[in-house]
Amino acid sequence: MPELRLISLGGMGNVTQNMYVYEYDNEMLLVDCGIGFPDLHMPGVDVLIPDISYIQDKLSEGKKIVGMILTHGHDDHIGALPYLLPDLPKFPLFASPLTAGFARNRMRETGADRSIQVLASGEKVEISQYFSAESLAMTHSVPDTRHYAIFTPEGIIYHGSDFKLDQAPVDGVLPDYDNIEAVARQEVLCMLIDSLRVERDNWTKSESLVGPVIDRLMSDTRGMFIMTLMSSHIHRIQQTVDAAIKHHRKIVFIGRSVEQNVDVAIELGKLSIPKGSMLDKREINDHKDSSLCIIIAGSQGQEGSSLMRAVYGEHPVLQIRSQDKVVFSADAIPGNEINYYGAIDELCRNDVQVIYPDVEPDIHQSGHASAPEQQELLDLVRPDYVMPIGGADRHRTKFFEKVARPLNYDKAHVLRPAMGEVLSFSQGKARVSETINLAPRLVDGLGVGDVGPMVLSDRRALSQSGMIVLVLPRHRGEFDLHQLQIVSRGFVFMKEADEVISFIKQTVAETIAEAGQKMKDEELKRTLERRLSRKLYKVIQREPMITVVFVET
Amino acid sequence: MPELRLISLGGMGNVTQNMYVYEYDNEMLLVDCGIGFPDLHMPGVDVLIPDISYIQDKLSEGKKIVGMILTHGHDDHIGALPYLLPDLPKFPLFASPLTAGFARNRMRETGADRSIQVLASGEKVEISQYFSAESLAMTHSVPDTRHYAIFTPEGIIYHGSDFKLDQAPVDGVLPDYDNIEAVARQEVLCMLIDSLRVERDNWTKSESLVGPVIDRLMSDTRGMFIMTLMSSHIHRIQQTVDAAIKHHRKIVFIGRSVEQNVDVAIELGKLSIPKGSMLDKREINDHKDSSLCIIIAGSQGQEGSSLMRAVYGEHPVLQIRSQDKVVFSADAIPGNEINYYGAIDELCRNDVQVIYPDVEPDIHQSGHASAPEQQELLDLVRPDYVMPIGGADRHRTKFFEKVARPLNYDKAHVLRPAMGEVLSFSQGKARVSETINLAPRLVDGLGVGDVGPMVLSDRRALSQSGMIVLVLPRHRGEFDLHQLQIVSRGFVFMKEADEVISFIKQTVAETIAEAGQKMKDEELKRTLERRLSRKLYKVIQREPMITVVFVET
Repeated sequence: MPELRLISLGGMGNVTQNMYVYEYDNEMLLVDCGIGFPDLHMPGVDVLIPDISYIQDKLSEGKKIVGMILTHGHDDHIGALPYLLPDLPKFPLFASPLTAGFARNRMRETGADRSIQVLASGEKVEISQYFSAESLAMTHSVPDTRHYAIFTPEGIIYHGSDFKLDQAPVDGVLPDYDNIEAVARQEVLCMLIDSLRVERDNWTKSESLVGPVIDRLMSDTRGMFIMTLMSSHIHRIQQTVDAAIKHHRKIVFIGRSVEQNVDVAIELGKLSIPKGSMLDKREINDHKDSSLCIIIAGSQGQEGSSLMRAVYGEHPVLQIRSQDKVVFSADAIPGNEINYYGAIDELCRNDVQVIYPDVEPDIHQSGHASAPEQQELLDLVRPDYVMPIGGADRHRTKFFEKVARPLNYDKAHVLRPAMGEVLSFSQGKARVSETINLAPRLVDGLGVGDVGPMVLSDRRALSQSGMIVLVLPRHRGEFDLHQLQIVSRGFVFMKEADEVISFIKQTVAETIAEAGQKMKDEELKRTLERRLSRKLYKVIQREPMITVVFVET
Repeated sequence: MPELRLISLGGMGNVTQNMYVYEYDNEMLLVDCGIGFPDLHMPGVDVLIPDISYIQDKLSEGKKIVGMILTHGHDDHIGALPYLLPDLPKFPLFASPLTAGFARNRMRETGADRSIQVLASGEKVEISQYFSAESLAMTHSVPDTRHYAIFTPEGIIYHGSDFKLDQAPVDGVLPDYDNIEAVARQEVLCMLIDSLRVERDNWTKSESLVGPVIDRLMSDTRGMFIMTLMSSHIHRIQQTVDAAIKHHRKIVFIGRSVEQNVDVAIELGKLSIPKGSMLDKREINDHKDSSLCIIIAGSQGQEGSSLMRAVYGEHPVLQIRSQDKVVFSADAIPGNEINYYGAIDELCRNDVQVIYPDVEPDIHQSGHASAPEQQELLDLVRPDYVMPIGGADRHRTKFFEKVARPLNYDKAHVLRPAMGEVLSFSQGKARVSETINLAPRLVDGLGVGDVGPMVLSDRRALSQSGMIVLVLPRHRGEFDLHQLQIVSRGFVFMKEADEVISFIKQTVAETIAEAGQKMKDEELKRTLERRLSRKLYKVIQREPMITVVFVET
C-alpha cells in the first residue's frame, strides 16, 4: 500500500531554506526551493541550500518529480532555484504572477530558466496522477503570496507557509477565505502553518498602517527623503510612492535588487507609478533634494549595499546630507544588529536624521501572523493534524501550547518532526516512518558543497587564534634547526614577537632532540604540533592551528 | 589658568568600557574601570579594556591620580580593575558597600588588591586639593548603585551613569532625591547621564514587578524551578529566594559568578536567605525535584556556562528533565541571539518548559531609564551642560531630540564629544580642547595588547576563506616543482580537491617559468601570492590567505 510521505529538506525548526517533498507511489511533488543564511558559526559561507540527495536517490530509483509549487517570492522560498534546478530533470512549476516573475529573475541569472505556470487564486490544477493543488490568496510582506491545498490520495494537505491575516491589504486582495472554507469543508488531513511569530499575542497590524507614517515623516523632511526596506516589499514601496506623489517628490530607485523587483512588479501591474514621476538615479543631481524620494536597498546595513556606500560617502550619485531624512523601514534581522545599528549610528554621527522602528515602531509591520491569527486560520481549516513550520523549535513548542492546545489538539495531533524525520500518512494516521540524513549544502563563492564541517571548524579555529606553519628542512636525516622558518598569521604581531619566536624554536629543538630519531615523520609532526600547542596555551592561553612541514634538502 | 578637563577613555558612543578621567592642574580623578566585549569583527578576543596611555603620559609628566570612584558593580564599570590597577600607582578607591565587595572579588583574582573606602549615600568625601565627591543612592539592576556629584574648582559635575528611577525598589532604597536636589541647588555645571534606553517612551517598570511573575511561574512547576539571570542581579535573586521560601523549595546556587556574588551580597547584608533554606549543589540529588529552586549562571547561553552544560546533559550534578521549568530572566544581549535562542530551542527540543521574555515580558525589567525618566532626572538637576553617556551615537542623538531639547537645551549645551575628544570647562564654558588617540586594548588569553588591527584583520580573512601555504624547495637557484608542498586549512577539503591542487601547481609552474629568474625572492613570493589569489578568485570566488615559503636545499 503506498502512503503519502512528507519531508522537509531544509530541515525542521528552520525558518529559512524552505523546501518540501510530497511523495506518493512513484511521484514527488515539491513545494518551494529556498536558500538559508549562514550564522556566525559558518564563516565565509554565502548561502545555504537544501540537501536534495533524498530526491536524487528517489530519481535514481525511477521515481519522478511531477512539479514544483512556489508559495511566494522571498528568497528563503525561491532563492535556491538557480542552484538546484540545474541538477534536476525538467518538471512543471506553478506560482502566482508576481512569485513567477521574481522566480524567473532568479533563474535567468544562472541560465536555469524554466517556464512557470501561473495560477490565479482559487484555481485548481491537476498536476499528476496523484496530486492536484489549489492556489489560495494569502497576505504577507510580498504581494501575491499563496497558500496551497494539496490534494493527495490520502487526503488534503493545507500548505500554509508564511502569512499574516491582513484585514486591509494595500492591494485590496484579502486572504481567500471563501476558497479556504470550501477546502476546509472537504476535510483537511493535515495543515502546515507558519508559526514564526507565535510569541506575540497581539494581532499583527495591517501593512496599510505604514502608509500614513511614511506620509507624516515625509511631510517635514527638508532635504531628500531616503527610504530603505526589503527589496521585495512591493506594498511598502507602493505606499512610499503614493506619499512621494502627494508631496511632489520624484521617485528614484537605487540598488540592483530594488530596481529588478520594481521592474517586475510594474510589468505585472503589481506596482503603480504614474508616468513622469520616476527619475533615473543618474539624474538626481539635476534636481533639488527637497523634490526627491529615494528608495534604496541595504536596510540591514549590508556591507557593499547601495545604502552603505552612500552612508560612507562612496556612492557614485547619492550624497546624504544633514537636512535629509533616512528611514529604516525594517527591523534588524536577529544576529545582524551590529551592521544594522552601525549604519544608523554612522548617520547619527553625521547629524543626519534617522528614523527606525525602535523610535517609530509603526514604520515597520511584520508580515507574519501572531498567535491569535494562527489560531484563527487553524480554526478555519480545522485539520486532523497540524504541523507548525517556518519557526525554530521554541516557536513550534509555543504553537502547541498557545495555538493548538486551546483548540483541543493533543500532542499526537500537533506534528513536530525532528530534522530529517519523514512523516507518513496512511488511512488518516500520521507517523514518523523514517529518518533521513540531511546536511545543508554550503555555497562559498562558486563552490557548492566543497565546504564541509571540517573546513568550517578549521575556519572557526583560525579566526580565534590564527595559525603557525613551521617549515623544517632536513638533510640526510638531520634536521637543520637554523633554517627553521616560521610563518604565522592572525596569532600575534610577529615582528614584535621575538620572545614567542625563540620560545617556538626552543620547543622544536627540544622535541627533535628527544624524539627526532625515534619517530616516523607523521608521528613526529603530530608530536611537534601537539607539544607546541600545549606549551603555547600554557604561556599565552591561545591555540593557533599549528602545522609542521618537513622539507628534504 | 588651569581648567577642568574631562575625558572618556573607553571612548564616546560606547555602552561598555566605562572609564572617565577628571583632570585639574596636576590632579587626575578617575571614575569607573570597566571592560568591553568584543564584537564579531574581533574574533578570538576575550575582552576589551580602556586605553590608559593618556593617564600614563600624564603620570610621566608628574601629574598624579588622586583617587578612583566606582559607580556600581557591573563588569563594564569595574571589570578592568584587575587588568589596569597593576599598571598604575597606588591611590584611594571609593565605592558603595556592594560595589566595593564586587570590586574586591575582581581584584583578588589577580592580586591587584587595593583597599576601598566605602561611602554611604549622601556622604561627601574630600578626595584631594581640588576634588571632592558626594555619593548619591540610585536605582539600577544591581543594588547599591550610586551617582556622584563631583565638586571641582570649575563647578559641580553630576556623574550620572547607569540608572533607572525605580519607585518601588526591592530593597526599599529609593534614589536619593533629597541630596540630589541639594546638589542641584548649588548649581551643576555639567551632568553626565545614562542615555541607553532613550528610544523607549514608557517609564521603565519597577524591578519589584518581577517578583509576582516569578511567584506565579513557580506555583505551577512540577519539577525543579530553574532560574537563570545576570549573576549580579541581587534584587532579582532576592525575589526568587522569597518565592522559593513561600513555595517550600530549597535554594541552590550553581555557577561560579552567581555563587561568588551571592556570597558577597549575603556577607554585606544585601541578600537575605533564612537559615536552612539553602542547599549545596552537591546535595540536590538527595532532594525531590519539586522541592528545589535552582539559580544558575548562563542566561546568555554562553558556551561552557553551568546552564549550558546542564542543557546538554554534561553538568556533574544538574540534570534537566521535562517536568522542570527553566526561566530565562534576561533579554538576549544584541548580537548574542544565536547562543541565547539556541539554548531555548535545545530545551524545547527536549520538551522542557521554557519561559523567556518574548513569551513572558514581565519576567525581565530593564535596569535603565527610559526617555521620560532621563528627562525627569535632567529636570531635577538642571545643569548648564548635559552630556549623554552609556549609549551608542544614535542614543546620544535621540537624547538631544527627545530629552534635552524639550527642556530648552540647545545643541551647544548638549555635549556629544567624538571618540578621543577632550572636554575642557573654564569659567562656566565647555569646549573641545584636544583630541587624543584612543585604541582599546584587546585581551586574548593572557596577552594584553599584542593583538592589534593587523592580527584581527588576518583572523577575519582566515575565517572567510582559510589559508594556503606553499613550500617550494630551491637547489642552487633552481626551484624543484616536484617537491612543492601545499598546506591548506579552512579553504576546501583538500583530500577531495585534486583539481584545485593541480591548478595551484600549474599556476606556480607558469609563474616561475615566466618570472623566476628575473625577480628577487620577496618580489617573486608576492607575485606568486598575488597571481594565485587572483586566479583562485576567478575560478572559485574565494580569497584564502596565501603564503609562499622558499627553502634552500
